[in-house]
Amino acid sequence: MNPSGVITFMSDFGLEDAYVGIVKGVILGINPRTRIIDITHQIPHGSISDAAFVLQDACRFFPEGTVHLAVIDPGVGTARRCIAVQTERHFFVGPDNGLFWPIIDRHSSPRIVHLNESRYFRSEISDTFHGRDIFAPVAAHLSAGLALHLLGPQISNPACLARPLPEIRNDQLLGRVIRVDHFGNLITNIDKETLKNFLEDEEAVIRVGRLQITGIGRTYEETTPGGVIALMGSTGFLEVAVCLGRADDLDGLKTDESIEREVIITRSGPTS
Amino acid sequence: MNPSGVITFMSDFGLEDAYVGIVKGVILGINPRTRIIDITHQIPHGSISDAAFVLQDACRFFPEGTVHLAVIDPGVGTARRCIAVQTERHFFVGPDNGLFWPIIDRHSSPRIVHLNESRYFRSEISDTFHGRDIFAPVAAHLSAGLALHLLGPQISNPACLARPLPEIRNDQLLGRVIRVDHFGNLITNIDKETLKNFLEDEEAVIRVGRLQITGIGRTYEETTPGGVIALMGSTGFLEVAVCLGRADDLDGLKTDESIEREVIITRSGPTS
Amino acid sequence: MNPSGVITFMSDFGLEDAYVGIVKGVILGINPRTRIIDITHQIPHGSISDAAFVLQDACRFFPEGTVHLAVIDPGVGTARRCIAVQTERHFFVGPDNGLFWPIIDRHSSPRIVHLNESRYFRSEISDTFHGRDIFAPVAAHLSAGLALHLLGPQISNPACLARPLPEIRNDQLLGRVIRVDHFGNLITNIDKETLKNFLEDEEAVIRVGRLQITGIGRTYEETTPGGVIALMGSTGFLEVAVCLGRADDLDGLKTDESIEREVIITRSGPTS
Repeated sequence: MNPSGVITFMSDFGLEDAYVGIVKGVILGINPRTRIIDITHQIPHGSISDAAFVLQDACRFFPEGTVHLAVIDPGVGTARRCIAVQTERHFFVGPDNGLFWPIIDRHSSPRIVHLNESRYFRSEISDTFHGRDIFAPVAAHLSAGLALHLLGPQISNPACLARPLPEIRNDQLLGRVIRVDHFGNLITNIDKETLKNFLEDEEAVIRVGRLQITGIGRTYEETTPGGVIALMGSTGFLEVAVCLGRADDLDGLKTDESIEREVIITRSGPTS
Repeated sequence: MNPSGVITFMSDFGLEDAYVGIVKGVILGINPRTRIIDITHQIPHGSISDAAFVLQDACRFFPEGTVHLAVIDPGVGTARRCIAVQTERHFFVGPDNGLFWPIIDRHSSPRIVHLNESRYFRSEISDTFHGRDIFAPVAAHLSAGLALHLLGPQISNPACLARPLPEIRNDQLLGRVIRVDHFGNLITNIDKETLKNFLEDEEAVIRVGRLQITGIGRTYEETTPGGVIALMGSTGFLEVAVCLGRADDLDGLKTDESIEREVIITRSGPTS
Repeated sequence: MNPSGVITFMSDFGLEDAYVGIVKGVILGINPRTRIIDITHQIPHGSISDAAFVLQDACRFFPEGTVHLAVIDPGVGTARRCIAVQTERHFFVGPDNGLFWPIIDRHSSPRIVHLNESRYFRSEISDTFHGRDIFAPVAAHLSAGLALHLLGPQISNPACLARPLPEIRNDQLLGRVIRVDHFGNLITNIDKETLKNFLEDEEAVIRVGRLQITGIGRTYEETTPGGVIALMGSTGFLEVAVCLGRADDLDGLKTDESIEREVIITRSGPTS
């Protein structure tokens, strides 16, 4: 697989400091021709599950040969390994803490190496900024065409990530809200196929918090302003949204934090 | 007009999700050589008027042949059209909802096409993310040199945008605050020429909220810290600012939301 | 020194407006081949000391020949000069207000010019946006290989910046918190060498606010969640952090703003 010359970069560093820019400076010092595209740097601090969800969605839209650099690394400087992953189309570089698990899990034979060839790192390695000292140079070398196997020994036991999956119980499809996006849309873990198989041809009744929605919509504006809609989002998962508003503002969801963000779907009968 | 190889990108997607990065991935998959420059992704959700103001200012500073991609699209998936616009120097790609109206309105013969040649889109089109599925690929193709007319039929009735213009009534120049920037500066809709013609050689008295300012200043620091100043801003419109502070914090503007942000200018007599 | 083709860009413009994008448009109109890398645009408005600290750290990681454009410019349009600086490895362009002082101060013979050759500026210069009209074009010309001396006369009296340095008094090492990063880590002005020389081989006791920490740690996770740690950060300065939390939330630091963020280090005896 030829490198595409593109490196994507995702982190929980935020944008107020120089950390993101410093990583890019290190990359450009090794591969001046690479294109660095930000995914997001506002993953909640240390939230490996948020990062894993965002990355498994975003990476699909990048050219073959893209290197995805992801640094959500609460365990920096501890015993956790640094890894690189090669799938059919992409490379991934980051900490071995489950961040890449959804991607590893959906490929038939990803190659994973433990990064231990320090000649491909910076000469001085800090205990607190492996993004700069290990992951950035490795991503840069991969983007310049370095073969994966030169980075370290292959491993077959990467860290997993527990991901709640939707389940069917007592004739209900039970899922949960796994992420709230910029618009306040609630993104659930209920994928298109699971929902379709459950409903067959019947209409859905969706309950989340104190909210109840009948039917799956198509667009954000097909109800009146303030109206709630459930639809299959661009991520491929069921979303709850509010027309010209924010679903996460809805009564019972924000105001009472003890309400677990469970999503319950039942069948209401054949669609008209 | 040769493409400059630059695509600018403006949206209301925010920076917490992968939506912005995904659009860039799609672009690079079609034109790997393009440079993508963010204008802003923090337009208030669905605010077409904010977006239109920002874009009509920013686009002027880009090289000839730049493609301006703008996705503020509350009507995604409804009947609104997708369009591309060509002016003497630039291209624009986005929803036909008035976003490009200030730009269209100031050019003598812009060419506007309705995007309906789906061979230039992604193969699967969602109902909720046309930024990724329609606008990104079209912008990429234009930046690679595709001729506009190949994207769809020309149209002559793009959506307009109602924009409040300053008016003179009872010997007063009446305008309004149309935007508040990062620094808390109030940007009005009073342009340099209208103000100059109104004042002739007299000094201005500017009233906004409970605030009254005499004279038009030149720089942010020509009054004492906390002092208010009105000046002609870099956007070409009159601004109200506070030296080392925020104009939008001023008493009567933030605390009492019912005060309409009207700007009233009167002449106070010949300048000394 | 050959230009690297990279321009870094730091400002206090924020990301809600087009100001950052406009600067990039002007740069690309002069040097279409340059790579523009953001350092941060969220320096607190007008905070020259924050900007100076961030830049003196970040610039070290960029390739030789990089041009660092920094616009934190509360004095725009007043008598302050516009300057460009050349060190052994880099160029710097921005206002002469102390922003570059830590960098100038640590180099043996930096060359500094007063930018007054207006043929290298935009044709129209505003009073309020020199980032767009002066600094952007100058940075672009330098990145394209223009020789520094053509930009204006050399000067030897750039603006300084008062920076509190750590001091030893009554057998205590006294420093202060100079910056709080995205993670809530408190970054102090106590550098590695000063600390090492003070402690010799004894263990440190660090007091900041009502907080007391014994010993210098190595990683963020070597204490229990919520536990406080002091460690030598990636910036090369002592930091106070909280495991899976924010040091700036600690009682006595946020709640009582009148507590000066002094950092007091004493020796507690030989390390075990």
